[in-house]
Amino acid sequence: MAEKIRIGIVGYGNLGRGVEAAIAQNTDMELVGVFTRRDPAGVSPMNAATPVHALDGIARHQGEIDVLILCGGSKNDLPEQGPALAALFNTVDSYDTHARIPDYFAAVDKAAASGGNIAIISVGWDPGLFSLNRLFGEAILPDGATYTFWGKGLSQGHSDAVRRVPGVKAAVQYTIPAQQAMERVRRGEQPALSTREKHTRECFVVLQEGADAATVEHAIKSMPDYFADYDTAVHFISEETLQRDHYAMPHGGFVIRSGKTGKASKQVMEYSLKLDSNPEFTSSVLVAYARAAFRLRAQGQAGARTVFDIAPGLLSSKDPAQLRRELL
Amino acid sequence: MAEKIRIGIVGYGNLGRGVEAAIAQNTDMELVGVFTRRDPAGVSPMNAATPVHALDGIARHQGEIDVLILCGGSKNDLPEQGPALAALFNTVDSYDTHARIPDYFAAVDKAAASGGNIAIISVGWDPGLFSLNRLFGEAILPDGATYTFWGKGLSQGHSDAVRRVPGVKAAVQYTIPAQQAMERVRRGEQPALSTREKHTRECFVVLQEGADAATVEHAIKSMPDYFADYDTAVHFISEETLQRDHYAMPHGGFVIRSGKTGKASKQVMEYSLKLDSNPEFTSSVLVAYARAAFRLRAQGQAGARTVFDIAPGLLSSKDPAQLRRELL
Repeated sequence: MAEKIRIGIVGYGNLGRGVEAAIAQNTDMELVGVFTRRDPAGVSPMNAATPVHALDGIARHQGEIDVLILCGGSKNDLPEQGPALAALFNTVDSYDTHARIPDYFAAVDKAAASGGNIAIISVGWDPGLFSLNRLFGEAILPDGATYTFWGKGLSQGHSDAVRRVPGVKAAVQYTIPAQQAMERVRRGEQPALSTREKHTRECFVVLQEGADAATVEHAIKSMPDYFADYDTAVHFISEETLQRDHYAMPHGGFVIRSGKTGKASKQVMEYSLKLDSNPEFTSSVLVAYARAAFRLRAQGQAGARTVFDIAPGLLSSKDPAQLRRELL
Repeated sequence: MAEKIRIGIVGYGNLGRGVEAAIAQNTDMELVGVFTRRDPAGVSPMNAATPVHALDGIARHQGEIDVLILCGGSKNDLPEQGPALAALFNTVDSYDTHARIPDYFAAVDKAAASGGNIAIISVGWDPGLFSLNRLFGEAILPDGATYTFWGKGLSQGHSDAVRRVPGVKAAVQYTIPAQQAMERVRRGEQPALSTREKHTRECFVVLQEGADAATVEHAIKSMPDYFADYDTAVHFISEETLQRDHYAMPHGGFVIRSGKTGKASKQVMEYSLKLDSNPEFTSSVLVAYARAAFRLRAQGQAGARTVFDIAPGLLSSKDPAQLRRELL
């Protein structure tokens, strides 16, 4: 057996815990440690043997780590950590602010190139696997249309928006793809779909004592950007029910490419995910791409990459001959 | 606009016609001509302006063609043409005899390397896009099981087998995935499924005059390898009905990876194709990979490749910055 790929985790929330669990499923990898901005003494990894270090001393660990997996958020953590850490280590992250990806890519690319490292950004399922399927769809069926549907799944951003409404004590929000729209797309109709036709939204809300349900419901349903353009259902439930039935983080979705070839043959490509745990799945994708980062660096490459730049074979622990024999 | 990628087609059956149609959908490509083992005067391309040449003079066209797409069969054509043409041109083919891929890869790799060319073998949907999804599935969810279901679709190999039964004048065979098995897999059960549980087979048969239906049906249903291990339905129809209702070549299928992460979260990845025309879709995949072959050669690479070795971005006519902006 070759030397194991040595992984470090930066940030220990849901994503970091998922990476810790995923590394244990990959026998060619080992976890060097968790790096946190919090007091390391206050962080308890799932595996008690996992070392926890302060993030600000991470530069001293350069010789011990092959790839760092960055598990911070796209809003506050990654814009700073991504470039800073790519200058020192090979990195993989799940940066998911779609509109700012070009700027983020440029900053990370400059840092990674200067440090002679590989940094794979925006890894996960969207951006990530869904992006790949959008690319395959339009490259293979140029005469066609691509549709992305999300859900059924818990949306953190929309749940946070509901929680900010006055009178709301706790809440979760589910995004639900519209079955009727999906069936039209699957039949190859290539319909023009409005925002309202593609998804519905469902909120489960615990009211603060004395809050008026009708007022809260109106405030949610009329919220611009988040709910005003959708058909939204609001259910009021008890705190006990919320904790019992809505603690999990399921998600998923669909990328469907509908196109035509030849005279008028309809061709439909569909990719879908049904995830019990959104963060654990994203973590599993990050870990597979960490293997690719390690290999690209071993080839002498440096700079930023996205999933579009990574040959799929680099994700597998199997060598190319074995892949051809077993999976082609 | 840059110079167009100049494509040649070798072999002009259903696949070759599909490639001709697909090239017309890609504005960065142009079709140089069709090369055939038949008398060129007897071949009529869909586009009357497409030149038709004798295959045995193809070496004289080396300076005019960037990538040759090989549209011959895996049994008789490609074992000889693949290595011979990869020595002279960049090539893409759909070699699909799974068990012999390692030997075929080695022969093509040697020829392509000697000629300084890129040869991408076994491109299409299975092998091809389905292989990629098998790889992504096990690389991302190592603790899991992968299931491939085919259909509903017309199988050429099984149709040919039915046609060889004494008393059969004409026939088609459809492979049908078992809905019940697929639902179990989608629920994350990871069942052990027998051949009989995964697919059923349905034959539409025109009898020769005087042939005995019961004898023919028994001969089909008891045929080893092809039908004996399956639940098979045999329908006898008229020649008119066969020609009216069964002339198309639909196909498709499903690759489902069911795995577990963390403590016991079920995660399901599903990829599916629903194709009105199997050969036209395979042709469209070949054409996208021809773009990748052209680009790899321009980078100075040489040798055989499979879909596992190709970074997805190379398939798109868009440049990397545009892909990140629009599709990531």
